[in-house]
Amino acid sequence: MAATPVRIDDPADPRIAGFVSIRERDLTGRDGLFIAEGTVVLRVLGQPAALVNGFAAESILLLENRLSGVADILASFPNTVPVYVASQAVFDAVAGFNMHRGVLALGRKPPLDRTASLMDRLPEKSLVLAGCGLSNHDNVGSIFRNAAAFGADAVFLDETSCDPLYRKAIRVSVGSVLSVPFSRGLAAQVMLERLAAEGFEIWGLSPRGAVSVSAIPATRRIALVLGTEGEGLPENILSSFRTARIPQRPGLDSLNVATASGIALYQIALAMGRVG
Amino acid sequence: MAATPVRIDDPADPRIAGFVSIRERDLTGRDGLFIAEGTVVLRVLGQPAALVNGFAAESILLLENRLSGVADILASFPNTVPVYVASQAVFDAVAGFNMHRGVLALGRKPPLDRTASLMDRLPEKSLVLAGCGLSNHDNVGSIFRNAAAFGADAVFLDETSCDPLYRKAIRVSVGSVLSVPFSRGLAAQVMLERLAAEGFEIWGLSPRGAVSVSAIPATRRIALVLGTEGEGLPENILSSFRTARIPQRPGLDSLNVATASGIALYQIALAMGRVG
Repeated sequence: MAATPVRIDDPADPRIAGFVSIRERDLTGRDGLFIAEGTVVLRVLGQPAALVNGFAAESILLLENRLSGVADILASFPNTVPVYVASQAVFDAVAGFNMHRGVLALGRKPPLDRTASLMDRLPEKSLVLAGCGLSNHDNVGSIFRNAAAFGADAVFLDETSCDPLYRKAIRVSVGSVLSVPFSRGLAAQVMLERLAAEGFEIWGLSPRGAVSVSAIPATRRIALVLGTEGEGLPENILSSFRTARIPQRPGLDSLNVATASGIALYQIALAMGRVG
Repeated sequence: MAATPVRIDDPADPRIAGFVSIRERDLTGRDGLFIAEGTVVLRVLGQPAALVNGFAAESILLLENRLSGVADILASFPNTVPVYVASQAVFDAVAGFNMHRGVLALGRKPPLDRTASLMDRLPEKSLVLAGCGLSNHDNVGSIFRNAAAFGADAVFLDETSCDPLYRKAIRVSVGSVLSVPFSRGLAAQVMLERLAAEGFEIWGLSPRGAVSVSAIPATRRIALVLGTEGEGLPENILSSFRTARIPQRPGLDSLNVATASGIALYQIALAMGRVG
């Protein structure tokens, strides 16, 4: 049951202070808050999966002419989440740019270090992604989208990877950042060793990988490890774990890391019988 | 043998007029010219494949401190292509923004309608992509990058798809737009019927496809057809040709079209023995 919408006529109204200049806020990630934009992401934020992952909406801000179109989505939020509506002029004055298509929500993150608890609640048979040095928001968003499409159980990001809760990463993920469990913050080697200790076969994806991704055998638990675009996975990781490659034409720049993650996940999910 | 670099001190120098305000020029595509930015793309522009496809450099503009780093790339251009160098201040005043990393080239397109001649020179065994309504420059660039990685022989784009020679599409493709032969401009149905008449098995990629992409049989000539993100391929195309899907979890937004093209191309290239 959604809250009754409240009209806002002053861009400086303190009730919508959290939406001011969200392009800058995007760069800060402070306060444990994040911005969800667009109807697809708002819908995910209102679903049980987001709640299980510890995400909660603080408030919703809509362009007045979008209100009727998102009524069914608003119904999935408790009535303790305020819904504000504003004219185009007020909306633009608040948000500071016009890329949001008139649908914004302010969300709150759960405490950051959930690595231990997330590992504890992974199912007996698991497929997870591990990212090392993934610094591009577009790529991280795309990787989460692929993780959701192929049923990965979680994403683990090392301390040098960017926060997937940046506005643009959430948008590119079509909300999957909120529905696929993740944690972030360990050193890469520590993260992978913990996964190995939990029974995961660790497979580093690299153009120099030892076997084709189509030769990765189905096992109980698999972690697919992705490195940063360009540099790829560091030598100490490639030499510590098994490695796989995506067969491609020689002499070219390797595939984009998001596309590579999609191909490898597709192949592993097929082998594990997760899609078909 | 590269031309001797010429120093430019005036942003209004007519010799570099083609580089003025390239962000706006990006939106116009007029004059049969295009902008190549960055060392990776410049390297591709200097290779024989780009020349075979009808692309030629008109001139090169470098930030002065980048000159020595690209000497080996410059050597691949004939000395009839002028090389200009400028200070940061002049460079920024010319290009109008600072995203180009100090390496720009102005290229010239071949005449646009090469559909007939491109079809004529495809090899007996061929794998091609056909795009219908691909309007996002990032996606089109990524699709060309995938086409190159998996050895596709050509890309055909319908009249409603965007020009892959937009600056951003070339950059995202890491230059593959210049090395993978393409043509653009026919109505989708006409384009696909011509490919069918040339002996291509036409496979439309769709979340509602009849078979899994892993079940596409290797044949002499295959055309993989991609639709626009969101809407997908129109009904008249899905009902006229064979269709394949990428198995994935139900109830989600389908994969990004560029990622989907990578997965399908990977699977088809494996089946056709093009990579391994």
